[in-house]
Amino acid sequence: MKTLSVTFLPDEKSVEIAPGKTVMEAATAAGVPINSICGGDGVCGKCRVIVRSGKVTAEPNEFLTRREIQRGVALACQTYPDGDVVIEVPMESRVGAVPRLAAEDAARFAPVSQWVGEGAPYAYEPLSRKDYLQLSPPTLDDNISDQERIYRELRRRRDIPIMQTGLSILRQIPTVLRAGKWRVTVTVGQRGGTAEVMQIEPGDSSSRNYGVAVDVGTTTVDAHLVDLVSSETVGAQAKYNSQISYGEDIISRIIYANTDEKLQTLRECVVNDINDLIAALTVETKTRLHDISYVMCSGNTTMTHLLLGLEVANIRREPYVPSATFAPVIRAAEVGIKINARGLLGVVPSVSSYVGGDLVADVLVSGINDSEEVSMLVDMGTNGEIVIGNKDWLACCSASAGPAFEGGGITCGMRATLGAIEHIAFGEGCRTTECGVIGGAKPLGLCGSGLLDLVAELHRVGCIDRTGRFVPEACGARLRRDAGLAEFVVVPGSDTALGRDVVITEADIGSFIRAKGAIYTAAEALLRHTGLDFSDVRHVYVAGAFGNYLNVGQAIRIGLLPDLPLARFQFIGNGSLQGAEMALLSRQAFDVMEKRIAPNMTHFELSVDPQFMNEYTGSLFLPHTNIEKFPSVARERPPIPVR
Amino acid sequence: MKTLSVTFLPDEKSVEIAPGKTVMEAATAAGVPINSICGGDGVCGKCRVIVRSGKVTAEPNEFLTRREIQRGVALACQTYPDGDVVIEVPMESRVGAVPRLAAEDAARFAPVSQWVGEGAPYAYEPLSRKDYLQLSPPTLDDNISDQERIYRELRRRRDIPIMQTGLSILRQIPTVLRAGKWRVTVTVGQRGGTAEVMQIEPGDSSSRNYGVAVDVGTTTVDAHLVDLVSSETVGAQAKYNSQISYGEDIISRIIYANTDEKLQTLRECVVNDINDLIAALTVETKTRLHDISYVMCSGNTTMTHLLLGLEVANIRREPYVPSATFAPVIRAAEVGIKINARGLLGVVPSVSSYVGGDLVADVLVSGINDSEEVSMLVDMGTNGEIVIGNKDWLACCSASAGPAFEGGGITCGMRATLGAIEHIAFGEGCRTTECGVIGGAKPLGLCGSGLLDLVAELHRVGCIDRTGRFVPEACGARLRRDAGLAEFVVVPGSDTALGRDVVITEADIGSFIRAKGAIYTAAEALLRHTGLDFSDVRHVYVAGAFGNYLNVGQAIRIGLLPDLPLARFQFIGNGSLQGAEMALLSRQAFDVMEKRIAPNMTHFELSVDPQFMNEYTGSLFLPHTNIEKFPSVARERPPIPVR
Repeated sequence: MKTLSVTFLPDEKSVEIAPGKTVMEAATAAGVPINSICGGDGVCGKCRVIVRSGKVTAEPNEFLTRREIQRGVALACQTYPDGDVVIEVPMESRVGAVPRLAAEDAARFAPVSQWVGEGAPYAYEPLSRKDYLQLSPPTLDDNISDQERIYRELRRRRDIPIMQTGLSILRQIPTVLRAGKWRVTVTVGQRGGTAEVMQIEPGDSSSRNYGVAVDVGTTTVDAHLVDLVSSETVGAQAKYNSQISYGEDIISRIIYANTDEKLQTLRECVVNDINDLIAALTVETKTRLHDISYVMCSGNTTMTHLLLGLEVANIRREPYVPSATFAPVIRAAEVGIKINARGLLGVVPSVSSYVGGDLVADVLVSGINDSEEVSMLVDMGTNGEIVIGNKDWLACCSASAGPAFEGGGITCGMRATLGAIEHIAFGEGCRTTECGVIGGAKPLGLCGSGLLDLVAELHRVGCIDRTGRFVPEACGARLRRDAGLAEFVVVPGSDTALGRDVVITEADIGSFIRAKGAIYTAAEALLRHTGLDFSDVRHVYVAGAFGNYLNVGQAIRIGLLPDLPLARFQFIGNGSLQGAEMALLSRQAFDVMEKRIAPNMTHFELSVDPQFMNEYTGSLFLPHTNIEKFPSVARERPPIPVR
Repeated sequence: MKTLSVTFLPDEKSVEIAPGKTVMEAATAAGVPINSICGGDGVCGKCRVIVRSGKVTAEPNEFLTRREIQRGVALACQTYPDGDVVIEVPMESRVGAVPRLAAEDAARFAPVSQWVGEGAPYAYEPLSRKDYLQLSPPTLDDNISDQERIYRELRRRRDIPIMQTGLSILRQIPTVLRAGKWRVTVTVGQRGGTAEVMQIEPGDSSSRNYGVAVDVGTTTVDAHLVDLVSSETVGAQAKYNSQISYGEDIISRIIYANTDEKLQTLRECVVNDINDLIAALTVETKTRLHDISYVMCSGNTTMTHLLLGLEVANIRREPYVPSATFAPVIRAAEVGIKINARGLLGVVPSVSSYVGGDLVADVLVSGINDSEEVSMLVDMGTNGEIVIGNKDWLACCSASAGPAFEGGGITCGMRATLGAIEHIAFGEGCRTTECGVIGGAKPLGLCGSGLLDLVAELHRVGCIDRTGRFVPEACGARLRRDAGLAEFVVVPGSDTALGRDVVITEADIGSFIRAKGAIYTAAEALLRHTGLDFSDVRHVYVAGAFGNYLNVGQAIRIGLLPDLPLARFQFIGNGSLQGAEMALLSRQAFDVMEKRIAPNMTHFELSVDPQFMNEYTGSLFLPHTNIEKFPSVARERPPIPVR
């Protein structure tokens, strides 16, 4: 059969494909990741590519203008090469660039040791530990078994009630003990209630013991290399979750994983990502894979299910049942993660289908569970999650915010990566615009924090009313109609990276308002369920990647966060990653998540709450239909009347 | 290359071999097991075969008389076929015939439930258990994870602190729960301190759950199939340990296993034996392998090491260090045992290199560890083991008795199988002889209990003096000289199965006296170490296959057992097998072995006891150099003077 050659720019990667395959399929085969939300159904319009040479046949679609089609722009999943072709993947459609967060996160989390160790809330007791044992050789008066000799010395050092050794290590012990002349290094890993002798080596290698903490995000996978001896974070790496090729959000991935084979494909995606990150960490820090003995992963319930290859179908179906919320500690190799051959993999426990280990880790890091005062935690992402509580009780709920905070479903939306507008301020009404762009180059589009700023500024200067509709007389020339649809030009094409205008439409603003309304209403509903109101909340912890770059003042102005004194707000950054890191360094921290936080978090299912929909409708205003809920915003200026 | 055909009778199995191979090698290739103690070095003389047709070349040896050689008798390991040959393997040289003990043992142990269950010393709590769960389907108000739903129901039924589920079962749970419409059967197995969900099946299969108890003896492997639901022993099978081909006793097997490959060969031997027994049990009882969820093995320390493939070399070298005395519970498949694919394998813990799990099981079965009174336990085999103690303390020692009790190293010795003389009584001096032969046929040789009877009778009628030397005037015509060596004809060739005289020599009697002396002296030494003497011992439990058919009166007369009232003696039969069976049915029984018996048994190493050798020398008389130790024997009749 004749094959067609497809070459991708700028990578210059080529692949031979059979006729009848799409450009998207060719890209997958070539290892060129292309953005996609819908998984190839042609309904998200995210997989734009440019045909640079050769002929193609494309299905008709609603996402491209005639001018774009003439310029060669096409949707990769809807386009079939008719012969050899050269395809450019523009930056906006690329997946896999390293998000800028890694380095900043590393700096922020380097002192994780402040949570663990002497004088800190959690005792230093890493989940895997290397002990250098100088054993007395056996004599006729002391001829206990080789295994018992090791156990006895370990138990002299600390209390280990249940110890186990697998058959393969047991078979090595006699030889290694004698080869090492009774001087050996033993690695002991914690598995549930059991301490497992995972490895025995001759001589002293006790100073080389590392763990990897991983935040398995739906969008980004973040990994830190932790020196389990010194408690230091010695390396940080991040990359996009390759599962994105099979669907941008959790639901589309669950839909994709409808056979065991596809489920395992998604497992392999994220396992490969983790292996890539670990490989990069070892290169960065000159560490051997052999010396990495433990991986601790944290993520939402779907992500941890996919990591372990567990059935996800029931997460999506009412009544939303996960396969397991407390996953067993297994050998990392069982899912394909490459560290020491006997190394272990733990997963931060989840609460329910939509309250994952990431939130449990957030709670640990925030310390809500240790305080007398009532605090609130808000983790904003595609799925918004709220926790309220103190040391005696914890309640949580989740609400679907949609992908708007991450740039999804927004005309010029994008993730917080190079070229994203993350900050906007208008001057002189809306006559001047100041943009902060990630990487400092020309802008490509709007990420979540830029979108939030934009909506807040549009509202502040009166360009939109409190329902989110444009006020033409305030917008002036920046408002225009394209094919009957009103759009506000944020940055003209002449000043952007791709020559296309960065715009925002009323539909975009509507998506954003629904997202912020869902978060606010969820927080309010959770307070109602616990008999409290916002004034009872002494601290608000904001978690999640979006949260890091959030302008709290603007978030209050548009009604995303409650109207509390700014001093009560605190960012905890990537709590998911940090919680995993604390668990690696402190068995006590892991136990607190497993035995105190996760099992005791009461989950309120908002979809069965009859009041929720009413309250939600009231929140679809800027800041809210009931302005009394936002007194500081009301004081700032009178509400702009709805047109 | 030309090959030679070797046919074995009575099996009529044939095999083609290359020239230069021995008859023994041909037999191994043909799957015809032939007895061997020395492993093929031509120094034990046990592998006698008869050349029925064809020519052979044989190395000269000291074991065969000229008449035997003329009759075609040859040693299989020293004989090379020169062409096609037909070889008969006489019964005495066969390995693999089912020992007669299996059926009797089954009858004896059928009521093992009397040790386990209500009103019995140990609570019924089998190491694996099947629960039929009728779960309520999840609702929005009760949408815990599938795994937690199972755990919750199990914990409603009983206290299970630590529960774990492996990844492969976790992956099945969601599908099986829904396929079974929330009616499922869950198998939970005990592994150390953890209860493992080993299996989940739709519907109710809770009535079909079996365990296999195995006594891994150096000579015989005995297995019982136990219904873990009803506590009944439903089947019994036994066969010789195939490792015998590589050496008859522990030491020669340890010497053989000097590379990992050879070690694993020995593991495969016994694993195949266990698999054969399990297969026979499933046929006998119409049970499916799938329904066997647990195997519990008990045996001496070397046997359990070989079963697990653990290094045995240091067991033999001073200071006699085993690899492990507390083996982990593993998946049976890890060593190759074929039951349910996820089924578990436990091993009764040992105390030291020469005090094995068989003795620990003996103690459990005897109940010494539960009594206020001081008791003694004697397990007689190639290695004799003694325990003394009560509920507060336990002391033990072991002494090498040599293979005499099992017929090894004795001119006409054989194991207690078909054709073995197990009982002898003389009449009118030694003029008449009454023999009890296993199977009732013509005798082939002497097993341990027959040998004991013979020595006792020879001594009683004055045919031997108290040093074991023949008294010719008492023996009369039955004593003759063959090649200058005196031998006493027990049964003339005309009355035996193979036409050869069954005889006993002074060397045989010497071997036996050394064996009985070692046991007695070990018991005496252990008492000395604990500050007691025989009069303090309220009960003597006799264990081991040899023990079952022992005449206690005769054993006292020759000085093997101490001179105590006969009422104090009690046989416990195959305590090793029975202890394994109790463990299968009662976690508490297993815990008692692991936490109370094995770790608390003080082991005295007799080889470093300076008094032992003196005392041993004194025991090399019938019954003892110090007749005051055997007052009832002294009362019976005055000692026969040493010549």
